[in-house]
Amino acid sequence: MMADKFDLARYIDHTLLKPEATRADIEKLCAEARRYSFAAVCVNPVYVKPAARYLRGSSVGLCAVVGFPLGAAGAAVKAFETERAVADGASEIDMVAHIGALKEGREESLLEEIAAVVRAASGRPVKVILETALLSDGEKITACRAARQGGAKFVKTSTGFGPGGATARDVRLLKEAVGTGLEVKASGGVRTREAALEMIAAGAARIGTSSGVVIIGG
Amino acid sequence: MMADKFDLARYIDHTLLKPEATRADIEKLCAEARRYSFAAVCVNPVYVKPAARYLRGSSVGLCAVVGFPLGAAGAAVKAFETERAVADGASEIDMVAHIGALKEGREESLLEEIAAVVRAASGRPVKVILETALLSDGEKITACRAARQGGAKFVKTSTGFGPGGATARDVRLLKEAVGTGLEVKASGGVRTREAALEMIAAGAARIGTSSGVVIIGG
Repeated sequence: MMADKFDLARYIDHTLLKPEATRADIEKLCAEARRYSFAAVCVNPVYVKPAARYLRGSSVGLCAVVGFPLGAAGAAVKAFETERAVADGASEIDMVAHIGALKEGREESLLEEIAAVVRAASGRPVKVILETALLSDGEKITACRAARQGGAKFVKTSTGFGPGGATARDVRLLKEAVGTGLEVKASGGVRTREAALEMIAAGAARIGTSSGVVIIGG
Repeated sequence: MMADKFDLARYIDHTLLKPEATRADIEKLCAEARRYSFAAVCVNPVYVKPAARYLRGSSVGLCAVVGFPLGAAGAAVKAFETERAVADGASEIDMVAHIGALKEGREESLLEEIAAVVRAASGRPVKVILETALLSDGEKITACRAARQGGAKFVKTSTGFGPGGATARDVRLLKEAVGTGLEVKASGGVRTREAALEMIAAGAARIGTSSGVVIIGG
């Protein structure tokens, strides 16, 4: 039972992205992530520097979100935001794709912004958030191709601020679309152990959730 | 009646911030803003450059949102985003305040980020979005003081993505708190002519809405 708990914890990006979050909330998040050996914490850029301090000496990763949650800041801003997050101590970058470009069929524009963020991340893994609830299956597949060609390591289903979250169907679709070498992060609305296990069974390698402690039964 | 319609139109920031908006949607937004002589359009950074093209030769302003909608990107990123938006043609900047700093009582941090964005805006008016639904009255008053000291021209009630929008009570409170020289923009949930007139009666100098055409009866 203990081993099982430990394994599930290693899938979890322990997440706090509410605009009213304070440094005290981030400190608590980081303490929980250390205690339960979560894969990473996931925070807004303004809290990357304190989170790096709170996580010092642990093996917990530190994801910064970029262009979050609308994905409409433009490639140059996302790249700058990534550079700053890396300088502040981020070990992973979760960027939101420009959904409008996908809707317009401008795959090359999407590819360019992903490549720009990957360059700015200097070898740190980049996850491309698709906001699947706003996309057709064709658009999801296009985005997965751009993520792969742009050098991302993950595609991620949702921001948690959009009209819907992760579904097992989407996780399977994305896992199939990205092919080997890339992974899928399921995020948005994953609040129970059952839901987390369902996402992992569908192919997710990471779960983004603010309910990590509940999920592992901590 | 025509004169009345014209006047009301001059209060309206015609707004489209949905992540799935395309350039075609922005073109339509700009055409409507020209047709009805709205004060400005309000768009995400990625669409400032095309919007500037669509508005060329008109007197319609062009607001770019910055740090939107969570306000948690950090001062350096917000300043960079502002510089880029200005270079792309923005004539006004609507920035989201770092709400966590307000919650922590770090007014000087808020003041610094507002001043950084005001500097980056190089004389263009800056509106500070407070997300009033997340704030106590005391926090609203603190934010108004920081906006004033930081050199902003407006405080703005809401992002439209938070848990609540503009209320006449908040508009009055903010108008009183900013004192002379600063104005209030009411935004979030203002969808009817009646609601718009109520906000103006409460002291709003600008209305942010995606329902501008409905509001002026266009």
